[in-house]
Amino acid sequence: MQLGVCYYPEQWPESMWADDARRMIELGITHVRIAEFAWSRMEPRASAYDWTWLDSAIRTLADAGLKIVLGTPTAAPPKWLVDAMPDMLPVRADGTTWNSGSRRHYDICSEAYRRECLRIVEAMAQRYGAHPAIVAWQTDNELGCHETVPSYSKAARARFQAWLARRYETVEHLNARWGTVFWSMTYLSFDTIELPNLTPTDANPVHLLDFRRFMSDEVASFHREQVDVLRRYAPNADMLHNFMGFFTTFDHYRFASNNSIDVAAWDSYPIARTEVIALSDDDKARYARTGHPDVSAFDHDRYRAIGQGRFWVMEQEAGPVNWAPWNPVPAPGMVRLWAYEALAHGAELVSYFRWRQAPFAQEQMHSGLNLPDNTLSPGGREVARAAQEIAQNEALSSLARSRAGSRAQVALVFDYETQWMFEIQRHAKEFDYQTLAFEYYRTLREMGLDVDIVSAHADLSRYRLVVVPSLATLSARFVQTIEASAAQWVIGPRTGSKTTDFAIPAELAPGALQTLLPFKVLEVDSLRPTLQPSTVLDGVSGIALYWREHLETREGVSVVARFDDGWPAIVARKQVRYASAWFDTALHRALLAGAARDAGLPVTYLPQGLRLRRRGDVTFAFNFGANAVEAPAPHGARFVLGQKTLGTADVSAWVDA
Amino acid sequence: MQLGVCYYPEQWPESMWADDARRMIELGITHVRIAEFAWSRMEPRASAYDWTWLDSAIRTLADAGLKIVLGTPTAAPPKWLVDAMPDMLPVRADGTTWNSGSRRHYDICSEAYRRECLRIVEAMAQRYGAHPAIVAWQTDNELGCHETVPSYSKAARARFQAWLARRYETVEHLNARWGTVFWSMTYLSFDTIELPNLTPTDANPVHLLDFRRFMSDEVASFHREQVDVLRRYAPNADMLHNFMGFFTTFDHYRFASNNSIDVAAWDSYPIARTEVIALSDDDKARYARTGHPDVSAFDHDRYRAIGQGRFWVMEQEAGPVNWAPWNPVPAPGMVRLWAYEALAHGAELVSYFRWRQAPFAQEQMHSGLNLPDNTLSPGGREVARAAQEIAQNEALSSLARSRAGSRAQVALVFDYETQWMFEIQRHAKEFDYQTLAFEYYRTLREMGLDVDIVSAHADLSRYRLVVVPSLATLSARFVQTIEASAAQWVIGPRTGSKTTDFAIPAELAPGALQTLLPFKVLEVDSLRPTLQPSTVLDGVSGIALYWREHLETREGVSVVARFDDGWPAIVARKQVRYASAWFDTALHRALLAGAARDAGLPVTYLPQGLRLRRRGDVTFAFNFGANAVEAPAPHGARFVLGQKTLGTADVSAWVDA
Amino acid sequence: MQLGVCYYPEQWPESMWADDARRMIELGITHVRIAEFAWSRMEPRASAYDWTWLDSAIRTLADAGLKIVLGTPTAAPPKWLVDAMPDMLPVRADGTTWNSGSRRHYDICSEAYRRECLRIVEAMAQRYGAHPAIVAWQTDNELGCHETVPSYSKAARARFQAWLARRYETVEHLNARWGTVFWSMTYLSFDTIELPNLTPTDANPVHLLDFRRFMSDEVASFHREQVDVLRRYAPNADMLHNFMGFFTTFDHYRFASNNSIDVAAWDSYPIARTEVIALSDDDKARYARTGHPDVSAFDHDRYRAIGQGRFWVMEQEAGPVNWAPWNPVPAPGMVRLWAYEALAHGAELVSYFRWRQAPFAQEQMHSGLNLPDNTLSPGGREVARAAQEIAQNEALSSLARSRAGSRAQVALVFDYETQWMFEIQRHAKEFDYQTLAFEYYRTLREMGLDVDIVSAHADLSRYRLVVVPSLATLSARFVQTIEASAAQWVIGPRTGSKTTDFAIPAELAPGALQTLLPFKVLEVDSLRPTLQPSTVLDGVSGIALYWREHLETREGVSVVARFDDGWPAIVARKQVRYASAWFDTALHRALLAGAARDAGLPVTYLPQGLRLRRRGDVTFAFNFGANAVEAPAPHGARFVLGQKTLGTADVSAWVDA
Repeated sequence: MQLGVCYYPEQWPESMWADDARRMIELGITHVRIAEFAWSRMEPRASAYDWTWLDSAIRTLADAGLKIVLGTPTAAPPKWLVDAMPDMLPVRADGTTWNSGSRRHYDICSEAYRRECLRIVEAMAQRYGAHPAIVAWQTDNELGCHETVPSYSKAARARFQAWLARRYETVEHLNARWGTVFWSMTYLSFDTIELPNLTPTDANPVHLLDFRRFMSDEVASFHREQVDVLRRYAPNADMLHNFMGFFTTFDHYRFASNNSIDVAAWDSYPIARTEVIALSDDDKARYARTGHPDVSAFDHDRYRAIGQGRFWVMEQEAGPVNWAPWNPVPAPGMVRLWAYEALAHGAELVSYFRWRQAPFAQEQMHSGLNLPDNTLSPGGREVARAAQEIAQNEALSSLARSRAGSRAQVALVFDYETQWMFEIQRHAKEFDYQTLAFEYYRTLREMGLDVDIVSAHADLSRYRLVVVPSLATLSARFVQTIEASAAQWVIGPRTGSKTTDFAIPAELAPGALQTLLPFKVLEVDSLRPTLQPSTVLDGVSGIALYWREHLETREGVSVVARFDDGWPAIVARKQVRYASAWFDTALHRALLAGAARDAGLPVTYLPQGLRLRRRGDVTFAFNFGANAVEAPAPHGARFVLGQKTLGTADVSAWVDA
Repeated sequence: MQLGVCYYPEQWPESMWADDARRMIELGITHVRIAEFAWSRMEPRASAYDWTWLDSAIRTLADAGLKIVLGTPTAAPPKWLVDAMPDMLPVRADGTTWNSGSRRHYDICSEAYRRECLRIVEAMAQRYGAHPAIVAWQTDNELGCHETVPSYSKAARARFQAWLARRYETVEHLNARWGTVFWSMTYLSFDTIELPNLTPTDANPVHLLDFRRFMSDEVASFHREQVDVLRRYAPNADMLHNFMGFFTTFDHYRFASNNSIDVAAWDSYPIARTEVIALSDDDKARYARTGHPDVSAFDHDRYRAIGQGRFWVMEQEAGPVNWAPWNPVPAPGMVRLWAYEALAHGAELVSYFRWRQAPFAQEQMHSGLNLPDNTLSPGGREVARAAQEIAQNEALSSLARSRAGSRAQVALVFDYETQWMFEIQRHAKEFDYQTLAFEYYRTLREMGLDVDIVSAHADLSRYRLVVVPSLATLSARFVQTIEASAAQWVIGPRTGSKTTDFAIPAELAPGALQTLLPFKVLEVDSLRPTLQPSTVLDGVSGIALYWREHLETREGVSVVARFDDGWPAIVARKQVRYASAWFDTALHRALLAGAARDAGLPVTYLPQGLRLRRRGDVTFAFNFGANAVEAPAPHGARFVLGQKTLGTADVSAWVDA
Repeated sequence: MQLGVCYYPEQWPESMWADDARRMIELGITHVRIAEFAWSRMEPRASAYDWTWLDSAIRTLADAGLKIVLGTPTAAPPKWLVDAMPDMLPVRADGTTWNSGSRRHYDICSEAYRRECLRIVEAMAQRYGAHPAIVAWQTDNELGCHETVPSYSKAARARFQAWLARRYETVEHLNARWGTVFWSMTYLSFDTIELPNLTPTDANPVHLLDFRRFMSDEVASFHREQVDVLRRYAPNADMLHNFMGFFTTFDHYRFASNNSIDVAAWDSYPIARTEVIALSDDDKARYARTGHPDVSAFDHDRYRAIGQGRFWVMEQEAGPVNWAPWNPVPAPGMVRLWAYEALAHGAELVSYFRWRQAPFAQEQMHSGLNLPDNTLSPGGREVARAAQEIAQNEALSSLARSRAGSRAQVALVFDYETQWMFEIQRHAKEFDYQTLAFEYYRTLREMGLDVDIVSAHADLSRYRLVVVPSLATLSARFVQTIEASAAQWVIGPRTGSKTTDFAIPAELAPGALQTLLPFKVLEVDSLRPTLQPSTVLDGVSGIALYWREHLETREGVSVVARFDDGWPAIVARKQVRYASAWFDTALHRALLAGAARDAGLPVTYLPQGLRLRRRGDVTFAFNFGANAVEAPAPHGARFVLGQKTLGTADVSAWVDA
């Protein structure tokens, strides 16, 4: 693993650049990302390019020995371009047109804007594609951020209609598969289909789903068009985009397919992320200065799969940020901890946002490795410490140099379409698929297990335990995979509840899974918080939250646990367990513990706030908790970092004896 | 009482229709409602009608012996029509135009759309008006639903101006009665009057009130225009519209006047309704699987008055629905209970929504009598049971056959204009008139009393107790009615507080009531939740909530109870009690108990969750509570259904000895 | 101090006017404000003036001996004007255009509307400017109310661009000072700069700040244009505008500069204000019927500075109002108390809103001195009592006649730009500058201290204690003032944290203050409510709320208190204390008590709800609390009003022995 930093030479006097580069190297930084917001400096007026400053910046950084990640500047189109083509501005679901004045003020469906993007990208690529110091190119920045996707523009409507025409071929097919006979929604031609916003009541869910699929494809093609240009001029550089953690607006697996990226890079802001996602108030309070123990790990483990093993942290917070309702200072030690955490999960690079806090404009309250007065920030000092430690420690630096992955024995299947389908039709107010997946992930990690987060299309053959928190649509192939598998399977509620056309399967939920588990879902019990059906599993009592299904079981499936009112809570057959409800943590733990036991996986219940992660022969321990805890290192373990007792924000690592 | 079902033949293969019809009959169903969302199947392209499928469906159903309710399809205009006249789309208060893609995407004020509606309605009526199996016609569907009324379109503005011109004749009259001298709001002509939306601060309340009156009339005339066509072709069929429970956007009494309907039909979804109306958290939790015990009864008793004695439940939930924040499965027994509840309140028909759950489109998570796989749903099985019980029980089936009403001895006056006036000017955040009316209704029912909900214009002469939760405007005629009445009267706060022009009466509130009760309201004390003036009535302590008036009493009125700070809480004279505040339940109960006592009405305090309703010589008891309770059947009562002890969701019925 | 009333002769029959005037005089009223919403009566149609009624009203009032405040009617343009120039309607941040139908339906940036305003103002001034009874003119009404400022119209965009061109001269200067290099926001000309709304994410904070400065100037120039006309015709009358309490949308100091006003008049609604500002739930409950004890005093003390010593209460509530979520009746005695409170703080006039409650239109639920039936309201009776008491009491009436101020020994610096800057960038959700200022003010008052609220540009040389709750930008001059001062200084967090171009100072926060207090802010700790760093000051324990800074101190500054994790909580040097956090009340009190002690100011900890205010040689005591309390009158004090023991809403006043 190497260290990087995000740098904005255009924001500082050229006289500072050489010193900045020197100090980066001194700190142990090898990679620097630049230019991704500098369109108005590269092209101050239409077609009047100015490359001098960028030539100079690249030369200065390269001369200092830094490797460069060059960003395309398309996330921040210059004002002169907006003035020339105001139709490029994005339109929100409520019909309002967004304005310039910040960033991402473009409609991803605007073909005119896409042409402009390819023009500036090609100009950059022509000039810098062959530069030996430029090892990677990043397209745009955090695609979809600020809710700019989906777009509801006229361009979006036209391209959506074309997308539908390609998908369905005839409008009769579309009418049949959408069930437009309902409420007289029948279409006579593709060009009369509207975007699914501003409807007095719910739009057709498959209309909404196809619109999300389309938008996901738009995001992917927006990136892909740039990459196709870049590869012509920079065939040896890595292509990437900086994804955002916990972001599900587009299907990252599809985005990454067909070599669209070489490495999955993501932006990691664990403290603000902990504040804004659906966690309990207790967890938000407990981890306010450390971030939730699983919030970064979850995306490390997910982006590793998306990058087919290769992932970077493109932006890592090094101190307080500016965009959450509250932005506390991280606990001392956390910036260092996050570096080791990335290493443990297999990151090739951790790059900090940003070299120096900008004293002006929108992000002036976002910290960096340096304060605006150019002294190292508290976070910067922690990065320096981690860099030194790794450099001086053979076990760690050899791990950092290795590309060896750390394939886990547990797979958790995460599926973007399932997220969209249950967002479109929550049915119970709090039902959020990613939150359920995170809950399963967290429970596995609290049991000391390493987890790979994978696509439903991944090769699952080498895992010993596969957890499917839910999977809205079940293909026959996936059911065959389960059937043929030697692993233990835990499958959550709503699995197989929909066809790919967003309909209830003819055989009812769980659809094709019925060939393995002979039961059907009669009714769905969406639970207000005061309704708490309870059950007992392996001596553990607990309740259902948000969601429960009423199962009618047939011969061949056994009811492992029942709710107090008699409905099955968990059913099983052979190596497959099915949870008919969203359970509380105690029950999820009992369920997974049983499956892990049957899978022959050793389970270690970790103290609150402690997490483990193995890579190669090294086991890392991270303490996110408020109290000192003992790492469960086996007798005779050789510590290569820290020691058995970990205070808050401490890290240790050992090799088993 | 007969049973019906809502059926969508267009959504299923024709090959299933005959079997569906056969199974309906088998279940005890006599009526089937069809076609109300099928415009695009009746007229796939402009003026290109296709009646074959509907001919066939009607023939199949009629041949099986079913009576048909035929719906006009105007709640879901086809896309080709919207494309031909985009001005027909409705406009919201914020100025946004709604779009097609769901339903109700029409502006009720669009004259072009109204012409299209009459065209399709006349086409249907010509073809099917004389069909002997078609016993009723329903116009549109749930008028006003999804907040599509009021409309803020240009058409609405033009028609509102014309409505005002008819009402006020000259703009000078309007200026005088609206008090437009305030804030220089004077108008020089009707055609410069705007809709009352998008004003920087409050619009003139009488402007808002007239706009609501106008919109109420628009809803009524939209329906009436269709009925006028239908009656020409189907003079013997019942005309109806399926109203929604708890819906106050238009004045149902005015809607129903002048033979616009023959029967009041309404759509009953008690569990979701309980979730979304203003009930205490405790009540919402307690009745999450049964619905609040009064939530259906309230509308049974209200629509019976609106239908002048004749009412149907056009859509009755038979299991979980899809549109509330949470949609729990009803407690076992509730579907059966609701059938008996409708019978007890005098319904002629209970029709279930819907025959078979649709596996596709917007309502796929809404249950029906059958699951998507065409097996009876749990709710369907309960309907079958109730149908059998009634058929096999002479006492019940004779009651079901009878049209005998069950006039109560207690009247509760409910007034739509009062709802609008207090919505326009809540003055205290939580003041909602219907909630207050429901609170009075609930309290009466907890005392074992049957209640008629009636208009202020109804004949009140035969009641022994009349409860007026509030009545914003008091006519001299109404005051004379009170004066001449032998009944006991309980009158709530804000009564007589406004003129019909939304002004404070010259003599101050309670306006004309002062001739009976000589007091005036000096000031109004709108109460934040921490302000809780307390009082004692007949030994019962309680507090005022939300609202209290400071009364200056004159000779002739007695102060029955005072607040702790000395202001009168309840005043009375002869047979009239006036409550100067919104009280808590304990005080409302004490107040009503006193009046019932003086009216000679026997009061039975029922256990929590139990309710009674008498029809003919049968008394029904319904247990909505979580615990088993004893029905207060008199000694020697002959049970015709169930028994004295009722578990959750149990029903019993007896005839007094 | 004299008494006034707001009167709307146009809303009542002319036959009532003479009696109204007579009864005003009888009540002790000397001033009457009229005409500020009567444009449509003065000019019923374009250029067709009708002055007869106003001539008559003025004559009637003047003949009765009343002095008249004449309002310009520009807050309520007539409908015919809107119809003639619909572009004058204001546009909201979301792009929606507001409509007529209430008031303030004009765009303050509309040059066409401004011309119309000057036309009607000049017509009024020509006719009435020389009238001897007209002692003052009020422009418009509550400028900025109902969120009509800022305006986002095209006119606003054009005038903002012109304002920017004047401020920055060249667009290159603007680009440099705005830091538009960030996110490619560079502008090529002033006429391409947009308003800062509808941006996908945060607009540049300096863009937002300049827009607020511009809008503040627009409000001031809108008023000033009218005053310039009025002074030509009425050179001897007082010019004023009725400001609203707690309103910070424009800079009142700038508004009042250059003789734009002669007296600062403000509208006082303490009970509703208490409900809607950011107070604790406990305080809102405790003072629901009295208003918070400091809520009126805060604005009395602020507007006294804005008026350079001269201030009026133009509208004073005399009973329940109509615009808060709840509008309780004031506790008996409060209307009288508020009159004395204004007197104690130095008001020249207290004018009641309104003479008689209007029974119609928008404000019919707003009380007045008379009920709609023309009998004195409860509040009206209290005003009559206060008027009599003052008239009959030599000490009080001589105070009321005097213009003698009551300069305090404590100054609290309040700065409007600081409000805007921290609104633009709260960084911690609850951080509101005015709330912090109010918290400091309240704490000082609970210690029995009188406070002047002053501008950062005021002469601070005569104070013994200066409190600066925060001051975003610090000028060198202000730092010199501190340095040269003999007073004690208490300076709060975020002081000196920004330049005037909304950037972090090169030397970091606290900017220029570092020359006095050698420390710098390394990081800012924005605190979610569960994060509560604690500290102890002078034996008092407490916590930080919302905000804490991590200070790196250098030699010369002493750390007076530290947080439990070691960061400095309070640092000091010589006469200057700096609080690095928003503290709880206990710590604020300890901090201010220490400073008061060092300043030689006697501190009296008052019982809950009691407040003092000295004017001349009289000390007033006001009890806003629920319990009877003892006033801290010294031994031998001579009571000129009331006595030592005060019940709820009681007032007393004494002269020290």
